[in-house]
Amino acid sequence: MDRLKLAIDMNCDMGEAYGIYQMGLDHELVKYVTSANIACGFHAGDPATMRKTVRLCLDHGVSVGAHPGLDDVMGFGRRAVPITPEEGYDLMVYQLGAICAFVKAEGSQLHHVKPHGALYHMASTDMRLARSIVEAIRRVDERLILYGLPGSCLLQAGEEAGLTCAKEAFADRTYQADGSLTSRALKNAVISDINEAVNQVLQIIKDRTVRTVQGTNLPLYADTICIHGDGAHALQLAEAMDQALQREGIHKRAVMSQGG
Amino acid sequence: MDRLKLAIDMNCDMGEAYGIYQMGLDHELVKYVTSANIACGFHAGDPATMRKTVRLCLDHGVSVGAHPGLDDVMGFGRRAVPITPEEGYDLMVYQLGAICAFVKAEGSQLHHVKPHGALYHMASTDMRLARSIVEAIRRVDERLILYGLPGSCLLQAGEEAGLTCAKEAFADRTYQADGSLTSRALKNAVISDINEAVNQVLQIIKDRTVRTVQGTNLPLYADTICIHGDGAHALQLAEAMDQALQREGIHKRAVMSQGG
Amino acid sequence: MDRLKLAIDMNCDMGEAYGIYQMGLDHELVKYVTSANIACGFHAGDPATMRKTVRLCLDHGVSVGAHPGLDDVMGFGRRAVPITPEEGYDLMVYQLGAICAFVKAEGSQLHHVKPHGALYHMASTDMRLARSIVEAIRRVDERLILYGLPGSCLLQAGEEAGLTCAKEAFADRTYQADGSLTSRALKNAVISDINEAVNQVLQIIKDRTVRTVQGTNLPLYADTICIHGDGAHALQLAEAMDQALQREGIHKRAVMSQGG
Amino acid sequence: MDRLKLAIDMNCDMGEAYGIYQMGLDHELVKYVTSANIACGFHAGDPATMRKTVRLCLDHGVSVGAHPGLDDVMGFGRRAVPITPEEGYDLMVYQLGAICAFVKAEGSQLHHVKPHGALYHMASTDMRLARSIVEAIRRVDERLILYGLPGSCLLQAGEEAGLTCAKEAFADRTYQADGSLTSRALKNAVISDINEAVNQVLQIIKDRTVRTVQGTNLPLYADTICIHGDGAHALQLAEAMDQALQREGIHKRAVMSQGG
Repeated sequence: MDRLKLAIDMNCDMGEAYGIYQMGLDHELVKYVTSANIACGFHAGDPATMRKTVRLCLDHGVSVGAHPGLDDVMGFGRRAVPITPEEGYDLMVYQLGAICAFVKAEGSQLHHVKPHGALYHMASTDMRLARSIVEAIRRVDERLILYGLPGSCLLQAGEEAGLTCAKEAFADRTYQADGSLTSRALKNAVISDINEAVNQVLQIIKDRTVRTVQGTNLPLYADTICIHGDGAHALQLAEAMDQALQREGIHKRAVMSQGG
Repeated sequence: MDRLKLAIDMNCDMGEAYGIYQMGLDHELVKYVTSANIACGFHAGDPATMRKTVRLCLDHGVSVGAHPGLDDVMGFGRRAVPITPEEGYDLMVYQLGAICAFVKAEGSQLHHVKPHGALYHMASTDMRLARSIVEAIRRVDERLILYGLPGSCLLQAGEEAGLTCAKEAFADRTYQADGSLTSRALKNAVISDINEAVNQVLQIIKDRTVRTVQGTNLPLYADTICIHGDGAHALQLAEAMDQALQREGIHKRAVMSQGG
Repeated sequence: MDRLKLAIDMNCDMGEAYGIYQMGLDHELVKYVTSANIACGFHAGDPATMRKTVRLCLDHGVSVGAHPGLDDVMGFGRRAVPITPEEGYDLMVYQLGAICAFVKAEGSQLHHVKPHGALYHMASTDMRLARSIVEAIRRVDERLILYGLPGSCLLQAGEEAGLTCAKEAFADRTYQADGSLTSRALKNAVISDINEAVNQVLQIIKDRTVRTVQGTNLPLYADTICIHGDGAHALQLAEAMDQALQREGIHKRAVMSQGG
Repeated sequence: MDRLKLAIDMNCDMGEAYGIYQMGLDHELVKYVTSANIACGFHAGDPATMRKTVRLCLDHGVSVGAHPGLDDVMGFGRRAVPITPEEGYDLMVYQLGAICAFVKAEGSQLHHVKPHGALYHMASTDMRLARSIVEAIRRVDERLILYGLPGSCLLQAGEEAGLTCAKEAFADRTYQADGSLTSRALKNAVISDINEAVNQVLQIIKDRTVRTVQGTNLPLYADTICIHGDGAHALQLAEAMDQALQREGIHKRAVMSQGG
């Protein structure tokens, strides 16, 4: 039991290149994470990048997840393009299908789904959109694990529909007293100090709490920790996190399906 | 045996709308065909159109096929963008996955694959590209039936790989003495007279020959006949063809997998 | 003086085709309008369509305007993609430059600018965005006439910057008592009865008032009337409007620059 | 006279970022070149990048040129998408207009035009395409200087039309005995040794010849030397070239219009 408590999934966004344009440090980060969220061509990624990134993950024993986003390369999927629940359903089915095919073609199967950027945030607070996204996942493959913010509409909709849901926490984002992430519009949204980020993760795993910007300790349980792949210190953070987990005897492993 | 000989599949391109832009007469033509080639978003089509078109076909008992094309909306997939075999593989896997997901989400499964436009033509004469396309199909779903030009590299590659292959003939395109289609750059490429098109189809089905522009009769066996969905007389041709087939006692039914 | 009062500009959106996809009845509507808003490739339109539409307008003595929109073909520029004022400036300069070049290449010069769809509506109520749009126009060509909603931030910013501004009213849209257009989300947003639309326009021109959905008469002065080019009755409305204007002795002519 | 002979323009591609995707070392290379070819959004670049890159060049006294390409971000404009001369005309007018507007908005005017990638190469050998490109330039602004390969259809068409033409040579590309560039498909297409590239440039400027891969010396006059901005050694090459030119007393300055 204690063993299980002290195991954690480390996830990272990958496959965000676009044509000749490179992005991220996939070949390095793949050594430190246990699951990867691979862009599906709408906000980033392209067919060749998807194939190569799927292969890269499988070669390193990293569980492959979908990272579907809004159809907005120019905004990298971070602009809250207003979409209907039906449009949300459609773009999920399309992108899930595409990444599933690459995973199948490489002899494996898709492990999880984590909506990207504005889609992730919109689905956190909009229950109709959340339900349409979950319906898309359920219809494409009901074994898929849904990654989302604890307490979000997205995870609530996923649980209602019987999907295995994984609660996600962030290594380098600060938390508000109400459990929400500090908006990126604010200065203190991102934790740039590596030790601070490592300590936040250890507190989340060991104490199941997080220190908020208001100075309170908030209960926070996480199945998976997101480390960003495109920041300046992405690789350093990944390495430091890895050493800290080893030091603390915390096991890294991908989230497992409740059915498995 | 004779019965079987006098059965034919009628296929048509569908789902070529794009955002608010409409294309084709899908809601009418779906009544006359037995299999549909649905655009997958690269040269035409979008997620919402794919979902609706898959549903439309299933509601009419029409077998759903993929119609993947080059990534070129502005050229509608008809410009021969030079791609490597690897690029061909990647764009096939991506688009096949996307359409497969919509078919699965609607409770059915994908029936066939027919590359679109320039991709179809390039794969007819380029064996390396043909083999990469076939490899993509085989890895995504080896039960898929491949539609292609009789004698083309594409069908040859499909047969080598063990795919069920369907030989396609065209109702309203003229044939050269060597069995190739008359280039669209030439005036007499398209048969605009409906009776003439109907007669060409009947001759192909009944006599297994086609009359070439040179006036010769060429052996031509076809499993499926393509009628175009976007021409001026598309609907009239479909109706006339339907009546002729009924008159002649020729049964319409989708191509069946050799494994089925 | 009375003569001047009873002259009006009729404007219409044009050039909304995209690749092989057609849209609107440009070749018919060009006979009835005095100024055209030509799509610039971001929400609709493409280089070939822009060239042909500019030529069509010039051949019919119709003043050529820019109709720049958000970079969102899939949403036809009608989705309120959140953009910064700086992004608004950039997409305006880009699109204005492109359409200016086609007009110059055809031997004429651009007459006016009317932002499209969501950009028009966002600039009506967001003064920072409105000012950035106006700054783009001013820097590209300060002689351009700005079309906008009376009382909007956009026209206010245009007047502050010294641009010639044209107040726009709509033939087939209903008005609220506060002067705003009824939201398209509501049933009674669009006037589908042609006579009603014609009468609304005549009242605007002759009485400088409009009857609101609340039944009041609201003061409303307009320099230009927008008739839509893509509705079911677009052509009938244009013809009926034309006859009504002739009957009433109201002269049609494009808005003139205050400097001219 | 000798003075004039020993002056040279150094040009470089710039503004090839795309949304959040970075490319090249514009902020460093701008210190070494005298003219810049700025991507116009079709194969690379976007409105914000265009504005910033134009400003960057003007701040460093670098002449701003257009670098229009094929509409193919995924292929970075390097795939020979087959286009008609009319399509070539249209995409040139569109992109020239867009970049012209940004240069005007920053208080300057466009200096030159250099087609990018596959468009450059196709226009080198296809006279009909070359003439349509030249016609687009002439109609948008006949003062623009055309950069092209010596002996190419493009420069021939430009001279026929009375454009000021600048002959371009490449610092790090090898030449065939017939004056053509060695195809990038071949191993020895690119000169990776910096000294060798510098020496090739000095020989071109001082002796007006180039050493071919066959070992012959070929007459080659150049008005402008292209140094690439995205190679591994781009910055080192630019610095080494700069020092060599200073050492040899060769003056750097942008190509001047024959009319100026």
